[in-house]
Amino acid sequence: MISIAIMGHGVVGSGVAEIFATHKKKLFAAIGEEIDVKYILDLREFPDSPFADRFTKDFSKIANDLEVRVVVETMGGLHPAYEYVKECLSSGKSVVTSNKELVAAYGAELLAIASEQNANFLFEASVGGGIPIIRPINQCLVANNVSEIAGILNGTTNFILTKMFHEGMGFDEALKMAQELGYAERNPEADVEGHDACRKICILASLTFGKHIYPEAVHTEGITKITAADVEYAGEWGGVIKLIGSVKKLGKDTIDIIVAPMFVPNLSQLANIDDVFNGIMVRGDCTGDVVFYGRGAGKLPTASAVVADVIDSIKHLKSRKYLFWSDSDNGSVLPYEESVRAMYVRGVADDKAAAYDNAKAVFGGVHQLSRKNAAENELAFITEPMALSEFEEKLAKVDGFKAESVIRIGDL
Amino acid sequence: MISIAIMGHGVVGSGVAEIFATHKKKLFAAIGEEIDVKYILDLREFPDSPFADRFTKDFSKIANDLEVRVVVETMGGLHPAYEYVKECLSSGKSVVTSNKELVAAYGAELLAIASEQNANFLFEASVGGGIPIIRPINQCLVANNVSEIAGILNGTTNFILTKMFHEGMGFDEALKMAQELGYAERNPEADVEGHDACRKICILASLTFGKHIYPEAVHTEGITKITAADVEYAGEWGGVIKLIGSVKKLGKDTIDIIVAPMFVPNLSQLANIDDVFNGIMVRGDCTGDVVFYGRGAGKLPTASAVVADVIDSIKHLKSRKYLFWSDSDNGSVLPYEESVRAMYVRGVADDKAAAYDNAKAVFGGVHQLSRKNAAENELAFITEPMALSEFEEKLAKVDGFKAESVIRIGDL
Repeated sequence: MISIAIMGHGVVGSGVAEIFATHKKKLFAAIGEEIDVKYILDLREFPDSPFADRFTKDFSKIANDLEVRVVVETMGGLHPAYEYVKECLSSGKSVVTSNKELVAAYGAELLAIASEQNANFLFEASVGGGIPIIRPINQCLVANNVSEIAGILNGTTNFILTKMFHEGMGFDEALKMAQELGYAERNPEADVEGHDACRKICILASLTFGKHIYPEAVHTEGITKITAADVEYAGEWGGVIKLIGSVKKLGKDTIDIIVAPMFVPNLSQLANIDDVFNGIMVRGDCTGDVVFYGRGAGKLPTASAVVADVIDSIKHLKSRKYLFWSDSDNGSVLPYEESVRAMYVRGVADDKAAAYDNAKAVFGGVHQLSRKNAAENELAFITEPMALSEFEEKLAKVDGFKAESVIRIGDL
Repeated sequence: MISIAIMGHGVVGSGVAEIFATHKKKLFAAIGEEIDVKYILDLREFPDSPFADRFTKDFSKIANDLEVRVVVETMGGLHPAYEYVKECLSSGKSVVTSNKELVAAYGAELLAIASEQNANFLFEASVGGGIPIIRPINQCLVANNVSEIAGILNGTTNFILTKMFHEGMGFDEALKMAQELGYAERNPEADVEGHDACRKICILASLTFGKHIYPEAVHTEGITKITAADVEYAGEWGGVIKLIGSVKKLGKDTIDIIVAPMFVPNLSQLANIDDVFNGIMVRGDCTGDVVFYGRGAGKLPTASAVVADVIDSIKHLKSRKYLFWSDSDNGSVLPYEESVRAMYVRGVADDKAAAYDNAKAVFGGVHQLSRKNAAENELAFITEPMALSEFEEKLAKVDGFKAESVIRIGDL
């Protein structure tokens, strides 16, 4: 019998407890031992829970119980999750978390403590919910040099963008619907401003390239400024708009990492990923493109990824999993103004034909887009790939044109 | 330093040797030890190979060398691959194979020997080439009861069907193109008749449901009878035709497993998987649908999956991986005549309107399809879901109609 503790009885944490109850037999078969959820830490009362007798409000009970070998952290937020996880790892307990904020902020430090203590620190559920991604990158693709990862990493924004694209909703209307359906929080900022996707691409980048990339170092744009007009132009161009977290290896020590809405061509496997689903493309030198698709959030998908990590921790109580990255000063991150991409521009022209001629003269190759019911002075075009700084310089030189929307073209 | 041997220096085997040379640094970082390819077994001569000094024609050298801890089998075919793998496992060496024929025919026996000897028998590369699928199912989805797996498991047939769908080619023309491009062999039977896909769905079914399912027990249909007319009707219906390997859990002890071309609706994530790519959908009770996509074959994708298994074997030289299924008599396989699906039928009617009325009378709900340039007496329709035996009985009762093509409708 192996004893574990679960810290946090919210959506994911209660799902973890539920799976240990409902999938007892399958989990027993996987490791040949019974798993006992000995403690559940939460400040709230759950008198009607089938686990009522396991609840405690006292973290020290868990920390000081030598029988507890694996601790699940599903509290969310940075504090006290960080302090609790650190204490557990420091005393040699393995920790499994679904907390992307924690991993993105303190991953390197916590992995180093785990390594010293020969314990495991696993976080499959922190990216892509129930989609296997951390373990496949770390194990299955180990014989690849990964050059790029790009993904739809946030279900809330993908739902909103899907409604805007397929049902012609505006951003506000689609957000309201997402909130009503429970896909978006009342304060939707972490989702719609891209912070959630940013934490996830940071975790994937850190894992893949071996150095911690902190969210503060990553240029992050949300989807609040996307309009129905942009969505229509994307369709005319032959694609859709998706919020993409992307990281590319440029040279030995440089990575180009960004979170931003992008035009995604219909032929890309990411273009067809709709609603609250997530999809992550990993480009390896041996495998080529591999794509992982599924529910990136939700109680049971996320909880099942947590439970899988618990099982893996138990299998490796003595022999630690090789999951590691070192700390860094973010020095490898390319300044975002130097990142090279083709750009979509929509704006208002004094004289449309003249402004387009100006754009052609300034940018060289540009490709005009059209849409039905556009105002007469609306002009939209796509540029060739160039550094953002060069693009912005040139855009300012296009006489008689005021840009209202600029969106990157993803090479996905 | 860990010594390994590679048996077979064909496409995949030579790729494995190549990756050990080109990715030395990355692999060293993964395990903290150097890997030495001590022997390569092949009856042919490779005097110009950078590994020329490692070649041997004598299997006993590998079998008797105690330094060799992991043996890669990329010979293909059943014999002598089976005998060699069995001998390696019996002497406590771990074995990694890409040989789906071997795993589908002898998996249960070889896993049992591996278990007795506390050695590993791993075969990630046997399904989906470079796509991670065996390990994700076995580890990441361990907290799920998987109810269904369905996939496009053969790149050759998917290439042919894609050419038929998007470029209007006939089967023979598309096959010829696949052969010219090296995607299909001169004798394409294993691919186009579905045998290759059958071995793969058998491996996935065995892994998921814990009992060996042998290919002989699985009803298998290929794509040779698909016509341009069928492809057009699928498009009109709102989908595509794909060769699908599918396994569903029906009750506690019954699985419905089949390989056959199916109509796949455009909304399915499998519908957009084109050319030589593979895609596999796994339906779990916690995760919902998870889809894995990528190159299902090819030298380096497949070889990189083999190498990842070698790394995993080396990490687990002492503590065996928990990958296991028991032998079976195929008793859990539902007779294919009892499998329930909606059906597409195309045929020739004496009098089209009368025949359709007859079909409606016999089948109850049927849905007629139309296409451009159809011959006047051509009739195509979709039935409601029913057991195949019931369908065939009813079809025979539709007076004035001769069926020329029958294709299952996938509920994917």
